[in-house]
Amino acid sequence: MGRRAQAAAATLAQLTTPQKNVALVRMADALVAHIPELLAANDLDLAAATDLPAKFTDRLRLTKQRVQDMAAGLRQVAGLADPTAVIDRGWTTAAGLTIRQQRVPLGVVAMIFEARPNVTVDAAGLTVKSGNAVILRGGKEALHSNQALAQVLRSALADTAVPVDAVQLIADPDRRFATALMHLTDYVDVLIPRGGAGLIQAVVKEATVPVIETGAGNCHIYVDAAADLAMAEAIVVNAKVQRPSVCNAAEKLIIHSAVAPTYLPQLAAALTAHGVALRGDARARAIVPTMAPATAADWDTEYNDLIMAVKVVDSLDEAIAHINAHNTKHSEAIVTNALAAAQTFQRRIDAACVYVNASTRFTDGVEFGFGAEIGISTQKLHARGPMGLTALTTTKYLIDGNGQVRE
Amino acid sequence: MGRRAQAAAATLAQLTTPQKNVALVRMADALVAHIPELLAANDLDLAAATDLPAKFTDRLRLTKQRVQDMAAGLRQVAGLADPTAVIDRGWTTAAGLTIRQQRVPLGVVAMIFEARPNVTVDAAGLTVKSGNAVILRGGKEALHSNQALAQVLRSALADTAVPVDAVQLIADPDRRFATALMHLTDYVDVLIPRGGAGLIQAVVKEATVPVIETGAGNCHIYVDAAADLAMAEAIVVNAKVQRPSVCNAAEKLIIHSAVAPTYLPQLAAALTAHGVALRGDARARAIVPTMAPATAADWDTEYNDLIMAVKVVDSLDEAIAHINAHNTKHSEAIVTNALAAAQTFQRRIDAACVYVNASTRFTDGVEFGFGAEIGISTQKLHARGPMGLTALTTTKYLIDGNGQVRE
Repeated sequence: MGRRAQAAAATLAQLTTPQKNVALVRMADALVAHIPELLAANDLDLAAATDLPAKFTDRLRLTKQRVQDMAAGLRQVAGLADPTAVIDRGWTTAAGLTIRQQRVPLGVVAMIFEARPNVTVDAAGLTVKSGNAVILRGGKEALHSNQALAQVLRSALADTAVPVDAVQLIADPDRRFATALMHLTDYVDVLIPRGGAGLIQAVVKEATVPVIETGAGNCHIYVDAAADLAMAEAIVVNAKVQRPSVCNAAEKLIIHSAVAPTYLPQLAAALTAHGVALRGDARARAIVPTMAPATAADWDTEYNDLIMAVKVVDSLDEAIAHINAHNTKHSEAIVTNALAAAQTFQRRIDAACVYVNASTRFTDGVEFGFGAEIGISTQKLHARGPMGLTALTTTKYLIDGNGQVRE
Repeated sequence: MGRRAQAAAATLAQLTTPQKNVALVRMADALVAHIPELLAANDLDLAAATDLPAKFTDRLRLTKQRVQDMAAGLRQVAGLADPTAVIDRGWTTAAGLTIRQQRVPLGVVAMIFEARPNVTVDAAGLTVKSGNAVILRGGKEALHSNQALAQVLRSALADTAVPVDAVQLIADPDRRFATALMHLTDYVDVLIPRGGAGLIQAVVKEATVPVIETGAGNCHIYVDAAADLAMAEAIVVNAKVQRPSVCNAAEKLIIHSAVAPTYLPQLAAALTAHGVALRGDARARAIVPTMAPATAADWDTEYNDLIMAVKVVDSLDEAIAHINAHNTKHSEAIVTNALAAAQTFQRRIDAACVYVNASTRFTDGVEFGFGAEIGISTQKLHARGPMGLTALTTTKYLIDGNGQVRE
């Protein structure tokens, strides 16, 4: 599969933007044309998943509408700018060489993900658009669905300029094949795991191919002494409850002791009214005794649920130190009207996205204006924060001379 | 060491450019002030290295001049622009958020290298300048030299704003510590191996921390049918003989059959006159019978020596296919006056640097105008080709709102 992906990538890298766009539209058409077969395959997975929680089977389930949404996603990607149609910069050297830094595809992208069949389609669309071949390895609970989706997508490519092997799925659920993929250093240019913290950490600890770590979000909102308290309430409630299951939702509330005694009861009431279970440190519980006690483990936990831990601090420094010690380097926010506090927070917090007076929920490729999102990188190498199509590219230097040799 | 490096990195990231430059100058001063102790430590390594080849002990040897050169290198790095003093771009989103993408240090850089003590100083200088802490692990043959250098550099930091633990050296030569460093995913943001292909491949196959692969260079010069043959001779000779031990030296000559019969004898004579031993395929040997035969292994070998293998091809396509099948994605060159051939070569060759009518020897951070070089990346993630100080940085998004929440 590595060899076939590499060969497909070499062809893909030479295609024009319209050739890739035609393939994306054909992939979309094929999904819509094969809805009955796709739902039948999905039924096999759902029938085997009866012991699994409803939240899990909901993510696994395909419906006519969901397949149509996947197809719409592919058409939308076809409409985005081609990230490889860009020269980043150019200059002339002291020796008189002209250098252009041209964006090019990475080559072979691998993705290991859980039981969300939509990732199969999303990943295929984004990699084809950026000129990369992809090797997919989805969760075994979605195996029939993923096989059916991959089959439909590959068939759609058969009469396009994009090679069929641009999209390959590992059809055997044996873990050995996932492990082999993580060590395919001669063929895989980047591996992007998508899923829960357990999956991502397992990949990071095992893989020797280059990995982009995504998705873990233990995000904090710090309400400063100089905050606009009405704004703070709107931001905290939005960041916590608007979609609690996602990585850019806030998990922790840090509040300055100058405002906590009068303000925390009001904020706690607002959160509780939205169904949030609060867990406080001793000082927070002294103010709002109905909170459960937070344990040491709470400060490092991403709940992905309607739970929020609350800590009272005496200074901006204490807030920053706590956040840098416990965050996952994803998204952090301060609510303040004090310019110095805002600047210090942005300078000293170590995270992909550092907000002043806005909800952490904006950490998202589409909200950032990238048009699409491959994931949110929480590592520092190659890409950090929301990744658009450009994150699936690298560059090469094209150097033009007229006979230059080195002295 | 990982914890200490992380703490040092947090302090370093907040320093001003002048604070870092003062430390670099103090490091330079300290090296010059301690030349006798450094040479004495180096003598211990040299005394233990009597069984090793002269080429090896030459790289290991410190002299007064070499220490002064290292110090001059640190002063030169102090004069370069600070890569973290840059905002890459900024924009306003649909929701009215202002986003700035700020360059910041990576954090903790690890380097594993062979018996070249200068790497200790180079790496310390480049990491301090870019605001990173470094953990160094050099070859055991240079242990006394590296310990003495690290001790001098750390002492020099003692009365500066840069924490002493910005520069740490693993003093125990046991391989277990190198292996542990390769798996320190909670502390190391990037590991850069520097040395021969064996070291680099061992690190790539073992490490689970993010790695930047550097240095392997099986570079080709393709002399096209439409080449200026005098230019081609100058380029081939320069790329092969000017410094044959380095990664951007040419190892292979590919020559079009339209010019080979009359031109190859002249080019072979020029190379032979410079002491180059030639190894040809059957067609090249039919033209220049004094060449030794090239074996299949030759096409994948980086000689780092005055050896060059020669292949005759019938087309640009054949040249490109051969190069893409055997190169290390480092630097490749075509010599041609045909525009279409130049464009096709640059578009289809998969390498960090693709030259038209210039020597591959220009693949170098200083020649590119970056002022310094950490290494030459032959992988596609994060950095590709010559890496300047910017390759030791990442970015963070600073997002300013006025109360925005997500709908």
